[in-house]
Amino acid sequence: MKNKEDKFEDKKITSRDKDYSQWYLDVISAADLAEHSSVKGCMVIKPYGYAIWENIQKILDEKIKEADVKNAYFPIFIPQSFLSKEAEHVEGFSPECAVVTHAGGKKLDEPLIVRPTSETIMYDAFSKWISSYRDLPLLINQWANVVRWELRPRLFLRTTEFLWQEGHTAHTTEKEAEERTRQMLDIYQDLAEEYMAMPVVAGVKSELEKFAGANHTYTIEAMMQDRKALQAGTSHLLGQSFAKAFDIKFLGKDGKKHYVWQTSWGVSTRLIGALIMAHSDDKGLVLPPKIAPIDVVIIPIWNSENEKKRVLDKANELKKKLKKDFKVELDTRDMRPGPKFFEWEKKGVPLRLEIGPAEVEEKQILVVRRDGGNKSLVDEKKVETKFIRKILDNIQKEIFNKAKKFQIENTNRVSDWDEFKDIFNKNGGFVHAYWCGNDKCETKIKEETKATIRCIPFKQTKKKGKCILCGGESGQEVIFAKAY
Amino acid sequence: MKNKEDKFEDKKITSRDKDYSQWYLDVISAADLAEHSSVKGCMVIKPYGYAIWENIQKILDEKIKEADVKNAYFPIFIPQSFLSKEAEHVEGFSPECAVVTHAGGKKLDEPLIVRPTSETIMYDAFSKWISSYRDLPLLINQWANVVRWELRPRLFLRTTEFLWQEGHTAHTTEKEAEERTRQMLDIYQDLAEEYMAMPVVAGVKSELEKFAGANHTYTIEAMMQDRKALQAGTSHLLGQSFAKAFDIKFLGKDGKKHYVWQTSWGVSTRLIGALIMAHSDDKGLVLPPKIAPIDVVIIPIWNSENEKKRVLDKANELKKKLKKDFKVELDTRDMRPGPKFFEWEKKGVPLRLEIGPAEVEEKQILVVRRDGGNKSLVDEKKVETKFIRKILDNIQKEIFNKAKKFQIENTNRVSDWDEFKDIFNKNGGFVHAYWCGNDKCETKIKEETKATIRCIPFKQTKKKGKCILCGGESGQEVIFAKAY
Repeated sequence: MKNKEDKFEDKKITSRDKDYSQWYLDVISAADLAEHSSVKGCMVIKPYGYAIWENIQKILDEKIKEADVKNAYFPIFIPQSFLSKEAEHVEGFSPECAVVTHAGGKKLDEPLIVRPTSETIMYDAFSKWISSYRDLPLLINQWANVVRWELRPRLFLRTTEFLWQEGHTAHTTEKEAEERTRQMLDIYQDLAEEYMAMPVVAGVKSELEKFAGANHTYTIEAMMQDRKALQAGTSHLLGQSFAKAFDIKFLGKDGKKHYVWQTSWGVSTRLIGALIMAHSDDKGLVLPPKIAPIDVVIIPIWNSENEKKRVLDKANELKKKLKKDFKVELDTRDMRPGPKFFEWEKKGVPLRLEIGPAEVEEKQILVVRRDGGNKSLVDEKKVETKFIRKILDNIQKEIFNKAKKFQIENTNRVSDWDEFKDIFNKNGGFVHAYWCGNDKCETKIKEETKATIRCIPFKQTKKKGKCILCGGESGQEVIFAKAY
Repeated sequence: MKNKEDKFEDKKITSRDKDYSQWYLDVISAADLAEHSSVKGCMVIKPYGYAIWENIQKILDEKIKEADVKNAYFPIFIPQSFLSKEAEHVEGFSPECAVVTHAGGKKLDEPLIVRPTSETIMYDAFSKWISSYRDLPLLINQWANVVRWELRPRLFLRTTEFLWQEGHTAHTTEKEAEERTRQMLDIYQDLAEEYMAMPVVAGVKSELEKFAGANHTYTIEAMMQDRKALQAGTSHLLGQSFAKAFDIKFLGKDGKKHYVWQTSWGVSTRLIGALIMAHSDDKGLVLPPKIAPIDVVIIPIWNSENEKKRVLDKANELKKKLKKDFKVELDTRDMRPGPKFFEWEKKGVPLRLEIGPAEVEEKQILVVRRDGGNKSLVDEKKVETKFIRKILDNIQKEIFNKAKKFQIENTNRVSDWDEFKDIFNKNGGFVHAYWCGNDKCETKIKEETKATIRCIPFKQTKKKGKCILCGGESGQEVIFAKAY
């Protein structure tokens, strides 16, 4: 018989150096975040993984509402003909669609697509909702599941079904739409950096990498510990292509009809994959406190029933003191402390407080940080809200700084093609290089190095240079990286 | 050209007496809660309707978490073979299924069902998660969309896709599972009565009306203003039928393998339909303050630019004072006040505060209640948190009392079959009557009167009586009603 203790010890985590891909899956399994389901490509998000998603949702939902956007909900099914109305859009999504052909015991007259994204079904409604400039801007968001058929699924990063939010707005002018596109990307950057402690580079996608149907796509790109890039959020200026396809017009102050200007933007459960790969180590998950489902775990340690009572009294007292300001877990299970330590370490709980008979005697508490593993014995009176808050804030900052340092150390500026190829043959990372803007160069570079243009960063040196491949004149530096 | 003002005035609401069904749709339209989408049977939940759902979610999610249940997320697709594993279950749901036959450009080997409910996909995972009594109880909830093909859709009440939460638990003993089934029904009753101000009757479903696959189903039934019943939430004791179908066993303390005992329970966006029909009137939506997206709307009234400034200054001051404790909307649009009053009345905002030049002059505020329409001029100093809270609490209570009074007035105890038929030929309502427990009597009664057994109430007089149809001996009084 296997009991819980043994189970936790069973979950050995492969080291990052040995096998990064396996390490990622091991961390997910050890922290009990998610698993593959019996439905190919679909995942089960387990309670601890879902709690992380709920935290991300809560933070982002507040910011979205502060930005005057209203939540709503649109159907999961999209008539096939809708998807076809915008030419680039249908070309981009058709190969990934799941199609309902039968329902209610009958073959449907028109097949329904399980939404891969909701532009078309929403804009069909927008065309009815918008008639005058007074109806604008229209600012809508929805939290939903979407389906894109995935042949090589990977938990959180690429799954056939995933959860996300998708914002969709309509405006009277291109300028206002453009501002909204940037505003929402800024919110994503804030979420990534200030809450998930994950530094990102913000910029514009190339034509080949942009969203199917957009004028241009803004993106935030994060560096994972294998030096690959992960696209963590995108915001699209859709222009008027969907407005024309769905006939979304408003009567302007000038008394004339105009097409609206639109944006769409989204982040998904993919962010959890990014979070794992940005911070975790060979012992398991590392979570920034602002995202962690549990801030503090208290571990009571005893060897006899007599000790148990005294230790538990003290532990309960401590929990009571801290729980009004923090998410506190007190682990009273009848297990040896070792497996408990391992378990909470694997789950990435930022702070562990240990209380044994010696600590009770000396009126002390052993405070252990998950991020660096630092331990210190602290007078029990000192262990209150201000003290804990300060450590958690420091952990939050240190996790960001560590990721930022890693990003900087693995970012290079390169102007020589051989050096460029050499980097992607070896360690990889982010490479800043000039690019002429031509699709052909971009494709050729991808073929030769597997690196793609992650973005044209907003922050440019404004100098001129030569395209890393063809040597043509270029006014823009871009970031190349291998990517998830 | 139609402008916004005209639009609001256009939305005339049919009276309840004239056409109850049309009244319901008119209220939804006038309050801008939802609309039919271009996908047959599916609705678009518009921002104001979705905000009501978010409030329900927030309240219920907290209660579910307090009951030690953890949120998780399972795939939207269910392999067809899974659904077939429990015989009653597949029979109950097959006619309503939407089927994905093609995906990723290919025909699937096995069709996938878009979940109508998640017992089967969850229990496939549970069978892997549970091995020992230490893994129990397993208490899981998910917030999700589900699809049941609907031929006669009706906004919120019956839609092909709807939003809900579904809780699924596994236990070592039948007793514990039974207690959990009741515990969750109690939570639903609390949500309905204390927050939605909607009195309900709690009881057990008959065999014919229970959930497909359950041992028995508990339900809360609410009375709508047309005296029909609406099933507002259900909680099922599943027993061991799914455990056997999915091989969910645990090693007990006795060292032997046992099947788990299971429960499932859910409420959906249907609750919004119930909320509308329980309280609204011929002027539009009436919302209990605990569920309302907006507590207080402030309407400034002016006739000249000079007045406008003074009035808006006062209105802004008032908003600032109230917004830390209430959800306050200040309507500064350049419109005549009449259409504004109508609009917020239609949207059911519990409290309206009017400030015009006379009120500024007299340092007063006109306080108007949505529920009874009572108006009173109040000294502006008095209009602060405690004052507003007291009115809102009173509105909450009065809305409940009114619905309760209506329920009592339209509930009859009947022992004569002709009288029984007569009631359902005329006004309807809830009818308490004895029933022998036989399916045949239940079916016959439904055929003759269109009334079904809504539940066998928990509260029984414990007396004996005779079946309303066959006259056979009966130890149980049940509630009959026509139902949604």
